Amino acid sequence: MEFQVTILGANSAVPAHGRNQTSQFVEFGRISFLVDCGEATQHQLKRFKVKYSRIDHIFISHLHGDHYLGLMGLISTFHLNNRVRPLHIYGPKGLDEIITIQLKYAATFLKFPIYFKETIPSGKNLLLELDNIRIYSFPLKHRIPCTGFSFEEKNRPIKLIKEKIQEKKLDIVYIHQLLQGKDVYDGKGNLLYSQAEFCHPTLAPRKYAYCSDTCFDLTLIPYIEDADLLYHEATFMESELDRARSTMHSTAQQAGLIAIKAGVKTLLIGHYSGRYIDLEPLLLEAREVFSQTLLSEEGQSYSIQ
Amino acid sequence: MEFQVTILGANSAVPAHGRNQTSQFVEFGRISFLVDCGEATQHQLKRFKVKYSRIDHIFISHLHGDHYLGLMGLISTFHLNNRVRPLHIYGPKGLDEIITIQLKYAATFLKFPIYFKETIPSGKNLLLELDNIRIYSFPLKHRIPCTGFSFEEKNRPIKLIKEKIQEKKLDIVYIHQLLQGKDVYDGKGNLLYSQAEFCHPTLAPRKYAYCSDTCFDLTLIPYIEDADLLYHEATFMESELDRARSTMHSTAQQAGLIAIKAGVKTLLIGHYSGRYIDLEPLLLEAREVFSQTLLSEEGQSYSIQ
Repeated sequence: MEFQVTILGANSAVPAHGRNQTSQFVEFGRISFLVDCGEATQHQLKRFKVKYSRIDHIFISHLHGDHYLGLMGLISTFHLNNRVRPLHIYGPKGLDEIITIQLKYAATFLKFPIYFKETIPSGKNLLLELDNIRIYSFPLKHRIPCTGFSFEEKNRPIKLIKEKIQEKKLDIVYIHQLLQGKDVYDGKGNLLYSQAEFCHPTLAPRKYAYCSDTCFDLTLIPYIEDADLLYHEATFMESELDRARSTMHSTAQQAGLIAIKAGVKTLLIGHYSGRYIDLEPLLLEAREVFSQTLLSEEGQSYSIQ
Repeated sequence: MEFQVTILGANSAVPAHGRNQTSQFVEFGRISFLVDCGEATQHQLKRFKVKYSRIDHIFISHLHGDHYLGLMGLISTFHLNNRVRPLHIYGPKGLDEIITIQLKYAATFLKFPIYFKETIPSGKNLLLELDNIRIYSFPLKHRIPCTGFSFEEKNRPIKLIKEKIQEKKLDIVYIHQLLQGKDVYDGKGNLLYSQAEFCHPTLAPRKYAYCSDTCFDLTLIPYIEDADLLYHEATFMESELDRARSTMHSTAQQAGLIAIKAGVKTLLIGHYSGRYIDLEPLLLEAREVFSQTLLSEEGQSYSIQ
């Protein structure tokens, strides 16, 4: 089952150098999520031909404009496109008030319901559980209340060894038991067909962790550890450490350090300051600490294996 | 003195076919105004290399998202660019509340003051008077409170006939009197130098009228009559008249009719429905009624002569 992240915007603060503000489209099989929604996210969704009508769940990390000012426009477009499916929005205190007041003055009665769930910027909190995935919020240290999000697969689907199944001509009832993770026994308790013989080894469930805006913060580790893919902001280079500290952002080197300490497989950096036209130096700085680092590039998809 | 309108967005409702939502940049000499501010207006300002830091006055016609959702992003960018000059915003009841609540949750204390003036959707009201221009609001009939804006030059500057001045070697004192629109007399009341002889004929002051979203409404005429340039929405073609009526928008033909009845010189249509990829048919429909019609095209400037 495909589990991937498509970058819609990778810049911080203001759009610059053709880069937009933060937003990501996360797909888990046929389920689609939007994570943050900077201004003009709907333009980016169209530009990259993303099937955005499928988005049922939107996660907003915090109420700085570069992470949410595209939300009202997207809601408006859903409405004008005659959406009827409910939309679930997860975000900080205040976001529902901001949405409600704008709908009020526009005298817009949406054709679909919005269900709002307020995120709590302390501890790990389950926001949503679907078939085979759970999405949690966890606290980030920034200038205003802010949370990250982790997308955690429950179990990897069991994959049968087709040749073996065909060779032994297994009955559908037994196949079903194997797919449920069970060995098959006869009435007397003798093992007939084992997981080990008829199924590929089960892979560990996958995890994507998203840290939008945060200072360098080791207390993050328990929430993001062992992620297959960690998105961590890297607004500045280490040469701008003072600025990173005063604005409660991170440097590329710090993002690399967090990735090492959390034992993640791959680090994706983003939220670049407008002062950087060329992003290679940010990538190189993070890679000096953590070699498995990638740059967020708009329109690119990053598969979580 | 240059008086011109640059189109930043000409589409209605949703961005489509590479067209953005409504916004216009109006220049009167060295003074710059922004009129409406759909989502991603700041992107368009950058795209068309508009010197947007000069904008001191923003006029918002109404609180449908396609006319104002770019405002918070622009305010945020002004803030991040260390703007200190005051920003004046003119718009309907509720806009100040929407701005204030978003600044509150972002915990942003702007580096510059915003002065907000609420528009009243009845009668013609003076919003702003600068050296040689007055800006008024006037009511538009739409689904929510909405105003148009008229930009009215007070007087055209008097232009001297240089050859005549040089030929008669006029003293600077007399030139100054002529430039103030006065004839020059000697102490006994005899005419020395007349406006007629030493100055080019004075042109009538110019007027730009802007009608963002409105149904076909003849009560508009007194506010927009004799405009040198009238922007009037033409969301639909006449074949969609029912839809125009139910949504309180206008057709291209109706825009043409208003232009004729108001005796304007040039009509600029815009606010196109996303259903129209090719805009020529809209132009032709309006021109059948009023030949001096132009299409709003993004990035294009329309000079008011």
